[in-house]
Amino acid sequence: MKSDELFALLRRRGVLWPSAEIYGGAQGLYDYGPLGAALKRRVEEAWTAWFVGLSHDYYLIDPAEILPEAVVRASGHLENFTDPEVTCESCHAVFRADTVLEKVRPEGVDGLAPKEIEEIVRARGVKCPSCGSKTLSVPPPFNLMFGLDYGVTGHERVYLRPETAQSSYLSFPRMWDVGRRALPLGIAIIGKAYRNEIAPRQVLFRMRTFTQAELQIFFDPEHFPLPFDRVREEKLPVVRAARRLAGSEEVELVAAEELVRSGGLPEFYVYHLVHTYRFFRDVLGFPTEKLRLFEKSDQERAFYNRIQFDVEVNLESLGGFKEVAAVHYRGDYDLGRHGQGSGKDLAVTLTGGRTVLPHVLELTYGVDRSLWALADVHLGKDGDRTLWRLPTYLAPVPVGVFPLIPKEQDAFALRLSDDLASAGVPNQYDEAGTIGKRYARMDEAGTPYCVTVDGETVADGPNRDTVTVRTRDSKAQERVPVAELAGRLAPSLRPPRPPRE
Amino acid sequence: MKSDELFALLRRRGVLWPSAEIYGGAQGLYDYGPLGAALKRRVEEAWTAWFVGLSHDYYLIDPAEILPEAVVRASGHLENFTDPEVTCESCHAVFRADTVLEKVRPEGVDGLAPKEIEEIVRARGVKCPSCGSKTLSVPPPFNLMFGLDYGVTGHERVYLRPETAQSSYLSFPRMWDVGRRALPLGIAIIGKAYRNEIAPRQVLFRMRTFTQAELQIFFDPEHFPLPFDRVREEKLPVVRAARRLAGSEEVELVAAEELVRSGGLPEFYVYHLVHTYRFFRDVLGFPTEKLRLFEKSDQERAFYNRIQFDVEVNLESLGGFKEVAAVHYRGDYDLGRHGQGSGKDLAVTLTGGRTVLPHVLELTYGVDRSLWALADVHLGKDGDRTLWRLPTYLAPVPVGVFPLIPKEQDAFALRLSDDLASAGVPNQYDEAGTIGKRYARMDEAGTPYCVTVDGETVADGPNRDTVTVRTRDSKAQERVPVAELAGRLAPSLRPPRPPRE
Repeated sequence: MKSDELFALLRRRGVLWPSAEIYGGAQGLYDYGPLGAALKRRVEEAWTAWFVGLSHDYYLIDPAEILPEAVVRASGHLENFTDPEVTCESCHAVFRADTVLEKVRPEGVDGLAPKEIEEIVRARGVKCPSCGSKTLSVPPPFNLMFGLDYGVTGHERVYLRPETAQSSYLSFPRMWDVGRRALPLGIAIIGKAYRNEIAPRQVLFRMRTFTQAELQIFFDPEHFPLPFDRVREEKLPVVRAARRLAGSEEVELVAAEELVRSGGLPEFYVYHLVHTYRFFRDVLGFPTEKLRLFEKSDQERAFYNRIQFDVEVNLESLGGFKEVAAVHYRGDYDLGRHGQGSGKDLAVTLTGGRTVLPHVLELTYGVDRSLWALADVHLGKDGDRTLWRLPTYLAPVPVGVFPLIPKEQDAFALRLSDDLASAGVPNQYDEAGTIGKRYARMDEAGTPYCVTVDGETVADGPNRDTVTVRTRDSKAQERVPVAELAGRLAPSLRPPRPPRE
Repeated sequence: MKSDELFALLRRRGVLWPSAEIYGGAQGLYDYGPLGAALKRRVEEAWTAWFVGLSHDYYLIDPAEILPEAVVRASGHLENFTDPEVTCESCHAVFRADTVLEKVRPEGVDGLAPKEIEEIVRARGVKCPSCGSKTLSVPPPFNLMFGLDYGVTGHERVYLRPETAQSSYLSFPRMWDVGRRALPLGIAIIGKAYRNEIAPRQVLFRMRTFTQAELQIFFDPEHFPLPFDRVREEKLPVVRAARRLAGSEEVELVAAEELVRSGGLPEFYVYHLVHTYRFFRDVLGFPTEKLRLFEKSDQERAFYNRIQFDVEVNLESLGGFKEVAAVHYRGDYDLGRHGQGSGKDLAVTLTGGRTVLPHVLELTYGVDRSLWALADVHLGKDGDRTLWRLPTYLAPVPVGVFPLIPKEQDAFALRLSDDLASAGVPNQYDEAGTIGKRYARMDEAGTPYCVTVDGETVADGPNRDTVTVRTRDSKAQERVPVAELAGRLAPSLRPPRPPRE
């Protein structure tokens, strides 16, 4: 489906819609409706089960999303979290420089000073995309952070965090103290980040407030114990930076051990890259051919990232591979900067007496982007059915509960709906329209199981207290005793965790 | 426990701590650590199960937390969401007017113009609480909203929402369209709100960013069908406004039907007041004598609230009854204002053809405040034990898993920990220190069950593959087969839903 078509469908089904619609909306803001909110919660739970489940020493925390100015000064965001922009002197439109220069400079403008960008604009005679005049100029770079006047004096400045990561770095010393004072220590956050994007676009892909799930793993660079054998033979769909520079963007399937042996990557990095890849394949259910692990070159990645692979998903709606997650080896940049900025030594003393400033491996994941990808990849036509083939544990509404003839079986079906909810099986009661229409609605919502209460359920006979369970993908129907229902359905509604052996 | 003592304990256990601690913190911002984040999620789940569970037509959504200026203009926040402040011309300190005038005007300053407040200050000779000089002045009221410069032009102004409620009102027309187009329709949001409080204080009670759980019920004022019989006989601990004005602040226990019959309250209001009260008593586990439903008088409540009872909990740490939730009957104020502000008619046409502008009943709940209350009420000494008697389904870590002798049983215990997690039973593995110390840590964390793997578990004999389950409150121990463990523990970890009959 194209982006517009997909968005229209998601809006119609109450998955998401533009924020403040009745006021004409606000650029870069979206609201999740009932299905979207439930899907988001489930994706967050699946992310947590998988990534926080990687170790008994990884923890989920929930810090405030406002950062004092000293924090973003130390992290470099105050100075460097900018997008070069181009403005038109004639029509006053504002554009991202990389977008305006896309054709004349496909490698982007990262690292260029405004003056250098202006020279390119002049030299190549670039015109304003909006009014066509040659009056583009390049103002000082635009900081993407939202600043707030904090407190009553008007003198205190704080910022909405541009990424959740900083909150983890700030929490490290406290987490060290309350934990078992050992490395590796993982700190995960699922929460909002805020960026005043110059050009919000592609619906959930570039919003001005969005949800990240990030795991920061603090580790001893000399010793990161992990069971590499569990991932050794996994083949990863990689695009290496060196090969790209040599002219090939093709995906290669390379075994994890090969990436270490001859690929120059450390075991700890590949281990987590494999688990990130498996999350997309085994948890979100994306086919391997839709995925690639795209290595960023020295020029492309931020200077503090020593290694970076983006996880990209091929999305029909957005016309190609799009970044949804990444694995960043950030070295000791973060604790080093916050150590300087705060004047506190953030090094820790390990058992044995060695003192180390922990390195950071960052697993970052765009929750909203992944929701869009889950719609793009799994939602589509199957004959005349519109079907959202979500993995069962991601379905916003795992179970539909219908009375075949509402007037006769509504009481039983409503009670069943409540009983299932009490037994930990979320569900939606629906009595509107024919059974076929109700199935169709649930198919679109990605509901894997529909349970129908009919005349036989409530009458004496061999099928008393049994219901029909219909499975979304196969359309197969089965008669199941009510007493067994929750027990049969519940296991498939729990997200998988990383296998241990 | 006193507030400081309680906070110190919560900080030591990694429940919460001041945000950006290494930078000296930021007023009114706190971070939730692993236990706090898990407790918060569980409280949110319990709130959802209870309140969204009140009807099959109530839904949880997740809208953006940024509002365009037109929205807060229509809602009245731009003009009226202010706290009168008092500044000192000598030392430049800033105070909330109601705090400075607490002694000379205990009824507060709501509704007074700055001039009127200044007159009181002069007439009573009020001194600056900070420097003692008589140079207090009253500037124009201070708006508590955080404004953002939005987009690249610098001309667009948006606001961090001061309450989640507005997002629900904006979503009503879309929810009407995607739903079954019938009233009552409930829209719930759990999310952040932001207020630039003049004087953040009392830890989680007055923060500058905090989490609300709010249910807005849109209904037809002529017909709100509900099973009042289910609540008729419930006795509520109320403090009526009229009695207060007559001089008595005592709590009366009044039956729900009595509040309707002779108390002048509508059934739909009392029904939801009962369920709110029951949530605090039956779900959060607060004893009735710690709770009161405190009616606000005409003067005390916002003009658009036709009826308001606050739910207050008596907190030792904060020296008395504190507001944690409220039930507001807001009439048609909200949809009326947003209809005017947006120029869209928000009235809906019901089956039968009648057109109605829905009224709103708002159930609002402070998530952070309730976490503090759960610590205040349930965390304390029992002999030499420090014990957090949280209801089992609220425990941040429901189960502790220990190997009695780590060297011998760690592999079995780690696998058990993973298996329980996969079976939907969150747990924490702990092998540090004596079993007694591990029990003590879990008692403080509120963990209701500790599972110990010992020599008998892993050796041939009658107790092979059984473990010891120790219950937090009773300290009772029982030998349980591993295969039965998840099934035995899981039901008590699901939050209760409102009983249907």
